[in-house]
Amino acid sequence: MKYITAEQNKQIDIELMENHGFLLPQLMELAGSSISAAISREYKPCRTCIVCGPGNNGGDGLVCARHLKKLGFDVSVFYPVKGKKELYEKLAAQCKSAGISFVDNIQKHAELIIDAVFGFGFKGELRDPFNTILKEIKELQKPVVSIDIPLGWDVEKGNVDGKGIDPDMVISLSAPKLCMKGFRGIHYLGFPFLSKLPKSVSEKFELDLPDYDGDVVFRLQ
Amino acid sequence: MKYITAEQNKQIDIELMENHGFLLPQLMELAGSSISAAISREYKPCRTCIVCGPGNNGGDGLVCARHLKKLGFDVSVFYPVKGKKELYEKLAAQCKSAGISFVDNIQKHAELIIDAVFGFGFKGELRDPFNTILKEIKELQKPVVSIDIPLGWDVEKGNVDGKGIDPDMVISLSAPKLCMKGFRGIHYLGFPFLSKLPKSVSEKFELDLPDYDGDVVFRLQ
Repeated sequence: MKYITAEQNKQIDIELMENHGFLLPQLMELAGSSISAAISREYKPCRTCIVCGPGNNGGDGLVCARHLKKLGFDVSVFYPVKGKKELYEKLAAQCKSAGISFVDNIQKHAELIIDAVFGFGFKGELRDPFNTILKEIKELQKPVVSIDIPLGWDVEKGNVDGKGIDPDMVISLSAPKLCMKGFRGIHYLGFPFLSKLPKSVSEKFELDLPDYDGDVVFRLQ
Repeated sequence: MKYITAEQNKQIDIELMENHGFLLPQLMELAGSSISAAISREYKPCRTCIVCGPGNNGGDGLVCARHLKKLGFDVSVFYPVKGKKELYEKLAAQCKSAGISFVDNIQKHAELIIDAVFGFGFKGELRDPFNTILKEIKELQKPVVSIDIPLGWDVEKGNVDGKGIDPDMVISLSAPKLCMKGFRGIHYLGFPFLSKLPKSVSEKFELDLPDYDGDVVFRLQ
């Protein structure tokens, strides 16, 4: 399994959209539904609070919220800083239509926390409200599932000085980023269809992805 | 189970997009992946020729083609009249990237034909090339799966005078159309998430959909 850098992940996304005709709403739908499938294999339906950030990772979280709700999870979404893309507004509207409540803090009675705050595009120091959110998630001591990059981790260096959260499960998208080396929790590869693009992304980036068996997710460890 | 008219289906789609924030590429991705899941439960991977029409039914067929290919089917697409939306071009490009061949006739050696020619929006008499295609599909005597509306059927009156094809399996989208009353083949409801929209589409249109159990498809008969 190859671990990739943030820049490689960015290039993969560009390649998928510019040279293979993929559209962002479509990729996000595939990613979010694959994330929800992975979660539902590891956790039974329960009170679940999804914390969504302002970018694409938060968008994946919104799609995941809708699918988890369908799967019987009691889902609330905490979306402290709204993203600017119209797509995110649409995804939030879909959640509301599906009966998902938008809350103004992390739900203390939640039995599962989904961290959809930042993905591979985030760099630098965390600022509030995300610093406070990071602290709150750590204090809650509930099972945490992170989408692609755990909150507070460096995309390449990982959980530097233990500042970030300590997730029970991570779903890597496209391919695991370098920060996942040495991770000991439950690790899924969501969205494993990349290995089926011929001549492709996976060869170009030498991804060495597991052979896709038709499932929407792939458990790595 | 309620059977709906073409006009009701049109209103449902408008409702989903205008009042619940759904986007066409997203709905098409959900529909196409659900169709491929239904097909893969009834047929083993085999040589499959998907005939795509110029509208949204053809778009669903293109998405289905890509997912079936992932599931191990040897897929070719016959797309005699290209649709005009940019979305269809993107979906076709994705198929090509996935190694699907575009062919210029129905493949006689195919073991399975998927009819993604017209959906509930089609009215009136079939014209060529679709008249000829209808004839060819009937002559081939291979298993046929139709998406939503079998080729040559009236959306509400069904297979008038036996002019249309005689599919082995139909996947209805959103809800079965009136033409499906009395159909005796394998019948799936793809895309069954509508039953989970609250206050919703399903109540507004009195759809009486089966209770969604988290699966992406629902076998009706």
